Amino acid sequence: MVSTMAAEAVPSKKAPPAWLDAVGERCLAEAHGFVEARAAEHFSGRSEGELAETVIPQFVAGGKFLRPMFAYVGWRCGGPESDAALRAAASLELLHCFALAQDDVMDGSALRRRRPALHVRFARWHAERGWSGSADRFGEAAATLSGDLFLVWSEQLLRESGLDAETLARGWPRYDLMRAELAVGQLADLVNDARALPAWETLLDVLRRKSGNYTVRRPLEFGAALAGCGADVMAALAEYGGLIGEAFQFRDDLLGVFGDPAATGKPAGQDLRDRKASSVVVLAAEMADRRQRDELDELLQLPIVDDRAVSRWCGLITATGARERLGELIRERAEKAQAVIDPAVFPRQAADALAVLATRCTERDR
Amino acid sequence: MVSTMAAEAVPSKKAPPAWLDAVGERCLAEAHGFVEARAAEHFSGRSEGELAETVIPQFVAGGKFLRPMFAYVGWRCGGPESDAALRAAASLELLHCFALAQDDVMDGSALRRRRPALHVRFARWHAERGWSGSADRFGEAAATLSGDLFLVWSEQLLRESGLDAETLARGWPRYDLMRAELAVGQLADLVNDARALPAWETLLDVLRRKSGNYTVRRPLEFGAALAGCGADVMAALAEYGGLIGEAFQFRDDLLGVFGDPAATGKPAGQDLRDRKASSVVVLAAEMADRRQRDELDELLQLPIVDDRAVSRWCGLITATGARERLGELIRERAEKAQAVIDPAVFPRQAADALAVLATRCTERDR
Repeated sequence: MVSTMAAEAVPSKKAPPAWLDAVGERCLAEAHGFVEARAAEHFSGRSEGELAETVIPQFVAGGKFLRPMFAYVGWRCGGPESDAALRAAASLELLHCFALAQDDVMDGSALRRRRPALHVRFARWHAERGWSGSADRFGEAAATLSGDLFLVWSEQLLRESGLDAETLARGWPRYDLMRAELAVGQLADLVNDARALPAWETLLDVLRRKSGNYTVRRPLEFGAALAGCGADVMAALAEYGGLIGEAFQFRDDLLGVFGDPAATGKPAGQDLRDRKASSVVVLAAEMADRRQRDELDELLQLPIVDDRAVSRWCGLITATGARERLGELIRERAEKAQAVIDPAVFPRQAADALAVLATRCTERDR
Repeated sequence: MVSTMAAEAVPSKKAPPAWLDAVGERCLAEAHGFVEARAAEHFSGRSEGELAETVIPQFVAGGKFLRPMFAYVGWRCGGPESDAALRAAASLELLHCFALAQDDVMDGSALRRRRPALHVRFARWHAERGWSGSADRFGEAAATLSGDLFLVWSEQLLRESGLDAETLARGWPRYDLMRAELAVGQLADLVNDARALPAWETLLDVLRRKSGNYTVRRPLEFGAALAGCGADVMAALAEYGGLIGEAFQFRDDLLGVFGDPAATGKPAGQDLRDRKASSVVVLAAEMADRRQRDELDELLQLPIVDDRAVSRWCGLITATGARERLGELIRERAEKAQAVIDPAVFPRQAADALAVLATRCTERDR
């Protein structure tokens, strides 16, 4: 049994992307409204909460709401339009906010969504006030605590979504797995960064567990599990999700090296500057001939990766054929994923949305 | 309605502290077993999880389980002996583990429970492996992620405790408040540390919201709410909890300045070295005469607080009368709290346990 709420504002016959975009916008409104109310409850009228009350809801509003969209599409594979399910889907964006706020501290990333990262904003605020102690340490602690609040509020939004207990019970195991995988995957990522370049297969494993599963497959499965979908739908979503999740991350990694700063909002070659062992970097090492491999190793050892090194590194990756090959891998996965969605098994609206999302995830430029 | 589980091994007629200590031990077994299973599930066989799989359950086992004891005593104010309620109570220790793991990162504390703090253990492990990148940054990130897992697992242990949905529903609002207050209180604490010495009233407010409420009052209320206790019991527990929570923190602050390193496991005068604006430090400033206040201000400005400065500072605090006064405040609160527990209202076992816990919290030396 699935609890349905008041009639929907969005007509269910409309084809994506209009329907899909409306889902994203409504999830944003739900998640933002929830966090704004919680932040006001805890921070209002407190001097130390002044900035938190503003930036924490702002942070939510800046998201693409990709994971809630996948979750709601998963739900629509077996469930009716429902405001309660929409709120449950929206809870995944707060889980994502938790991950981003803390990842940026751990990775020392200064930019997020074209704005200063949360820890940078808190640090500046501390410095402007002229308080004693390290502004940077304060910023990191405040961003970590904001992340903790997102983690708590995500679960609270899901529990209070309005879905009945029986429906929720089907989603909890998926939700718990997703939360734990996030933290465990980030730990694996820290170790991966710290080591020498991992082998391609090792990298794929981490990538699947961390970003791949997390962005597409788990949200889809979570939504479909809530709706009580059968084994055939679950299996198809798992396959689609695995493929598109991987392709999403490959695309992300290509953008991290070759992306246009005007579109991505990050400096050119940011992943190279950060010495990130991303898929394109690892693939280039695997495809390199002896001379290219020596050159790559030399770049990996540079104490500082400046503009000139970035440009040399980019040229070298292209020369190994890794850039083109990764593009092929993305296309292969996108095609395979589209073929998985059998129109005889999936409701029309869900199938259409999955096709649109596959394209969005694999052809995006930011 | 309250769900009860299989008959209890602990005879309910036995007087504390035997009964109370058994509650503590059983909560430890539940929390430790749960975390051990989760850690094995996520980390087993993974090189990056090798240390996490060991130290995360170890961290749980090191606790005093004070909060679960208060929660279970709160439960026993209206509910029968119950394994499910015991697991629900134990979930609070995992919340505490979350707070400790991340607080130690934020405060840069190297010791916890006589052992190296979690972030220190992860950092050493990283360094021993000779991995590239900063071992300290790795340690901080890994401890923060361990904290995140504790936060997730606490909620999961509570949800899966075996209490029925109706019983749990009475506890969620208290539980959510406790979780959010933890993060919000820590933020306030960071700001408090960074400022000049706060006024006594400001300090009391932060102390109540952070440690006071969190250690005694909220756990008691949480347990009693789960059991469906009436307004009179809730009001008495709130008053008892507020008083003992404050006294607990005053005692903690006295130990942070005057505690015996052999008993506390921390260097003498640790809070002075950390320039912590604790109750005894703030009270000393308020009670100081002009000459003493000048001397205190001078100590507060020292770039490094060495053994000699600690000893001078301790002497000065004693001379202002703040040490003695704080001892009086603790005794006053303990007496008032005992008087709140009306034997006509509370079940005998719960009343006895509250009396024992009041003494333990206010007379402890570690």
